[in-house]
Amino acid sequence: MAVMKVHGNPFSTSTHRVLACLYEKDVEFQFINVDMGAGQHKSDNFLPLNPFGQVPAFEEGDLKLFESRAITQYISQEYNDKGTQLLLPGSNKTMAVLQLWKEVEAHHFNPPSTKLVFELHYKPIFGMAIDTVVVEESEAELAKVLDVYEARLAQSKYLACDHFTLADLHHLPNVQYLIGSSAKKLFDSRPHVSAWVVDITARPAWSKVLDMQKQKL
Amino acid sequence: MAVMKVHGNPFSTSTHRVLACLYEKDVEFQFINVDMGAGQHKSDNFLPLNPFGQVPAFEEGDLKLFESRAITQYISQEYNDKGTQLLLPGSNKTMAVLQLWKEVEAHHFNPPSTKLVFELHYKPIFGMAIDTVVVEESEAELAKVLDVYEARLAQSKYLACDHFTLADLHHLPNVQYLIGSSAKKLFDSRPHVSAWVVDITARPAWSKVLDMQKQKL
Repeated sequence: MAVMKVHGNPFSTSTHRVLACLYEKDVEFQFINVDMGAGQHKSDNFLPLNPFGQVPAFEEGDLKLFESRAITQYISQEYNDKGTQLLLPGSNKTMAVLQLWKEVEAHHFNPPSTKLVFELHYKPIFGMAIDTVVVEESEAELAKVLDVYEARLAQSKYLACDHFTLADLHHLPNVQYLIGSSAKKLFDSRPHVSAWVVDITARPAWSKVLDMQKQKL
Repeated sequence: MAVMKVHGNPFSTSTHRVLACLYEKDVEFQFINVDMGAGQHKSDNFLPLNPFGQVPAFEEGDLKLFESRAITQYISQEYNDKGTQLLLPGSNKTMAVLQLWKEVEAHHFNPPSTKLVFELHYKPIFGMAIDTVVVEESEAELAKVLDVYEARLAQSKYLACDHFTLADLHHLPNVQYLIGSSAKKLFDSRPHVSAWVVDITARPAWSKVLDMQKQKL
């Protein structure tokens, strides 16, 4: 089988999502750094890998993918028997519940949390002024989402079921940046959400992603 | 098997997405109208079906789902042998390509097209003023997405492969409203996109969704 190649950047949240999955599955892969500062992601060499000019992109032999959540789904299915079981194989009904919580991450958690990561994490790094109106609106939106999570996590150890799955994993990159910002209070004030955050960010596979970032600093 | 129940509203795009799937699969279901004007979607009766207080919600016996794209995925898998084949069953690689284009719809097409549907379709109905800045920004964003679609559809009859799948179906509700608005030019100016729009909006299953809307007017 051809070695998996991930074209990404150690500071991109979408790249972290794919790396977390690869480390959970304990599979070999090759990381190819895309120098976004030099505009490599918009170059003629990169666009055939991802026509939107974004990282990550993924290759395994003839298969070329982009979109981090499509890549994690493929890796989890193709390497189903290796490392951590990240899916809920079995009936269509159990898979539907996993899909539901993946959709909640994509459509409810991701939009406000991505805005907050940009305002509270990336803008200070680049010396840009934080837009306090965007922060307030996004925090209010995220708070409502986390109220739903608090109720769910009072009934279920993880979002889809009682074990860690892709539905939880997809949250890690934004959660990690937000618990290092003033938005941490949104997680801390909800006990079940707070325990879930402590649990998922302590996973050894996630530590490997953070270590990789540190090595590139 | 318990009858499928869809709690939705005939004017909600997410409801249309689920109805289009049900009609493609040619399966029986019960439609339960949620009177959003009366705030039923925020009521104590409805919130256990969807804690975000949005339509649609779905029930089949003990299974309760929300998020339109999780519901279409479940129906397409559970009723795999009925009606139109909306998935790419086979290898993990073919399924990954379908997943990729579903993610593109969710993360690239849906955000700007949803903003445009709100500005150009819903606001005039409710007598609200259109925000021309939002329209211009969203049209520019959508144009870039449709450039990628134009290149893809020059190589492949539909987004994921040479037959209609969920990746195409998920676009129908927003496409339908936008081709009835000033944003139609974005589709018309791209020949492969334009042919794809004509094709997918002419599907008999989609006509049934539009007929259902007309009956409720």
